[in-house]
Amino acid sequence: MATPVKVYGPPLSTAVSRVLACLLEKDVNFQLISVNMSKGEHKVPDFLKIQPFGQVPAFQDEEISLFESRAICRYLCDKYADKGNRGLYGTNPLVKASIDQWLEAEGQSFNPPSSVLVFQLAFAPRMKIKQDPAVIKQNEEKLGKVLDVYEQRLGESRFLAGDEFSLADLSHLPNTHYLVSATDRGELFTSRKNVGRWWGEISGRDSWKKVVQMQKQGA
Amino acid sequence: MATPVKVYGPPLSTAVSRVLACLLEKDVNFQLISVNMSKGEHKVPDFLKIQPFGQVPAFQDEEISLFESRAICRYLCDKYADKGNRGLYGTNPLVKASIDQWLEAEGQSFNPPSSVLVFQLAFAPRMKIKQDPAVIKQNEEKLGKVLDVYEQRLGESRFLAGDEFSLADLSHLPNTHYLVSATDRGELFTSRKNVGRWWGEISGRDSWKKVVQMQKQGA
Repeated sequence: MATPVKVYGPPLSTAVSRVLACLLEKDVNFQLISVNMSKGEHKVPDFLKIQPFGQVPAFQDEEISLFESRAICRYLCDKYADKGNRGLYGTNPLVKASIDQWLEAEGQSFNPPSSVLVFQLAFAPRMKIKQDPAVIKQNEEKLGKVLDVYEQRLGESRFLAGDEFSLADLSHLPNTHYLVSATDRGELFTSRKNVGRWWGEISGRDSWKKVVQMQKQGA
Repeated sequence: MATPVKVYGPPLSTAVSRVLACLLEKDVNFQLISVNMSKGEHKVPDFLKIQPFGQVPAFQDEEISLFESRAICRYLCDKYADKGNRGLYGTNPLVKASIDQWLEAEGQSFNPPSSVLVFQLAFAPRMKIKQDPAVIKQNEEKLGKVLDVYEQRLGESRFLAGDEFSLADLSHLPNTHYLVSATDRGELFTSRKNVGRWWGEISGRDSWKKVVQMQKQGA
């Protein structure tokens, strides 16, 4: 059996869980190495060598170290093209371009407001940090506009990049999971017919259900 | 001669100029189609068909329409692998993974604070919009921390992803150009020895000088 790849970070982190979902889809053997962020383990020199921004996840596979969850996912799909879900990053250039497009839309348009809302609504209360109602309102409006575009797109195709589940859909799982299951703003998704249908489908995948299980065990 | 690809949007837009720099590096023939944003041409139904978020650029090549500048750049490098700068997106999987990593760092860590500063310091005064000193200060601090990581990285390698100029460097050109040439915050870059050396090198490329010329003509 090949040496497992290494992922550093807690599964509760949205960026870590994005990589875990990808590993499970690709059926790649991995070892999860805990990083205790409340003890500042992500800011120590040895960790900064593989993640210079002091964030999670960090990742190692044979001769390469990587950071940035979406770059790690792209690497996994390229390196392990023949394992697990072979269509996760497309099998022809046009589909791959569509996946890149919606993966960038996630990173540039969906992630900024949704990650603010995840922090404000799900994490701040647990961390006894005061919520900012103006920030919440502003980002809820921004996210709503993004989801209006998704609603139209998902009326035309089953998944964001086409007829098959892809890295573009997968990348939305971590933030959406928190907003639907750990805040009272799940309606942003479920009140939109096509987005709600899509969310039910992508969140029901075995890979993601395993990640949620890991989050519960690691919490 | 092959039909030119189509790029919709003004060269003054940072995202449009990212795609133009990539097209010039790859020596791909293109047609630039103006979109008058002050007249709202990016919000009309025909434009929303190819750019559903109502942003620029939009892009067309033969049977494909795309949006999101970094996804368009990836597509161009894959589709026109044998044209122009062949190493722009790497020629082996490890280099490509490093390029993806630093391209994501640009999109996730560098772009958010730098694009806020470009808007606040370069565009807001021209548009007679009031600047927000607290927002400027906060984002200047954020950007400084990102550039501290870059300073270390660029002390170890000539370019962000390794020894060759790549899409990861190219993607930093539009925002950095405005901050260095159209604001009084250029020192963020030039005061850091390695970042300053890197900026001199990447901004001196013929491809970028042509984009700046297009911006002057289109302004």
